[in-house]
Amino acid sequence: MTEELDLVNRDPNNINDHLKVSFEDILAEPEGAHSLDCIWKCSYRCFTCWKDLCYTILTTLCAICIAAEWGCEFAYVTFVHVWYVTPLFKLLEINCACLQKLYGMCIHCCMDPFCEAMSIIFTPFKR
Amino acid sequence: MTEELDLVNRDPNNINDHLKVSFEDILAEPEGAHSLDCIWKCSYRCFTCWKDLCYTILTTLCAICIAAEWGCEFAYVTFVHVWYVTPLFKLLEINCACLQKLYGMCIHCCMDPFCEAMSIIFTPFKR
Amino acid sequence: MTEELDLVNRDPNNINDHLKVSFEDILAEPEGAHSLDCIWKCSYRCFTCWKDLCYTILTTLCAICIAAEWGCEFAYVTFVHVWYVTPLFKLLEINCACLQKLYGMCIHCCMDPFCEAMSIIFTPFKR
Repeated sequence: MTEELDLVNRDPNNINDHLKVSFEDILAEPEGAHSLDCIWKCSYRCFTCWKDLCYTILTTLCAICIAAEWGCEFAYVTFVHVWYVTPLFKLLEINCACLQKLYGMCIHCCMDPFCEAMSIIFTPFKR
Repeated sequence: MTEELDLVNRDPNNINDHLKVSFEDILAEPEGAHSLDCIWKCSYRCFTCWKDLCYTILTTLCAICIAAEWGCEFAYVTFVHVWYVTPLFKLLEINCACLQKLYGMCIHCCMDPFCEAMSIIFTPFKR
Repeated sequence: MTEELDLVNRDPNNINDHLKVSFEDILAEPEGAHSLDCIWKCSYRCFTCWKDLCYTILTTLCAICIAAEWGCEFAYVTFVHVWYVTPLFKLLEINCACLQKLYGMCIHCCMDPFCEAMSIIFTPFKR
């Protein structure tokens, strides 16, 4: 079951690429505004540590429950779509085919003679 | 009766392809935001288990009744369409053909001479 | 009388093709959302049985009466069209031809010289 689970690349479809944020994307000192080297280094380390720590704590506490919830949710949605929405659409399609036939009949009835008459204007172009 | 029923591929016409959702499509951790391996594995297992479990429970409880309901519904719709709607359309078609003839006669009567005259403008294009 | 009636193909002109719905067209489980095999089989059987049963009951009860009604209706419509509408149209056509001639004469009288003059614009296109 977990054989296919890739622990290294956890986003094979790149659906969360916009969340890839590193220190350089957030904090950057331009030329002429440099803090002390040790402060900059320490800031980098602090940022990374706290980011990893917080994320790990949050996921450890909640991830499994949330995953289970999403599992239920998607099972329910799939169920509703498979057993209600798709058949309902088929039903609508059948009724829509009828309406289209009726509407097409009216349009042909009203517009065909008019367009036939109008086409007389262009008879000189006939070959 | 069930000989033709394919238990492996249950969507031969691909009508519910949009409901194919796997763990990778829903949950994905980008680079730099990885939870602990055991948590990630456990989340995967939980998601898959709950999804399968919920779907199985829901279908076991309701699927047969729903299928029976849809059977009745489609039988009724087929009956109404075969015995009422289609003949009614044939009737409408007959009457519509008459109306179209009458309406066409009026339109042709009014517009043909006018369009014929207009077509004189384009006589130089005649070959 | 029933020698020509084809009991196998009952829609030789394919006028009700949109009503051909099988189980596969209505209910379909995508990959990763499969109910138990017995449930799926049972759903199939239920759907098919109820559809056939309902349709059979409905037609057994009503089909003959409905067919008789439509027979009367179409006989009446045919009668009206053959003995009233078509001769009436012929009459209208004759009168309309007269009107069209008169009206056409006026239109041609008024518009022909004007259009002839306009057509001079396009004489360079003459071949």
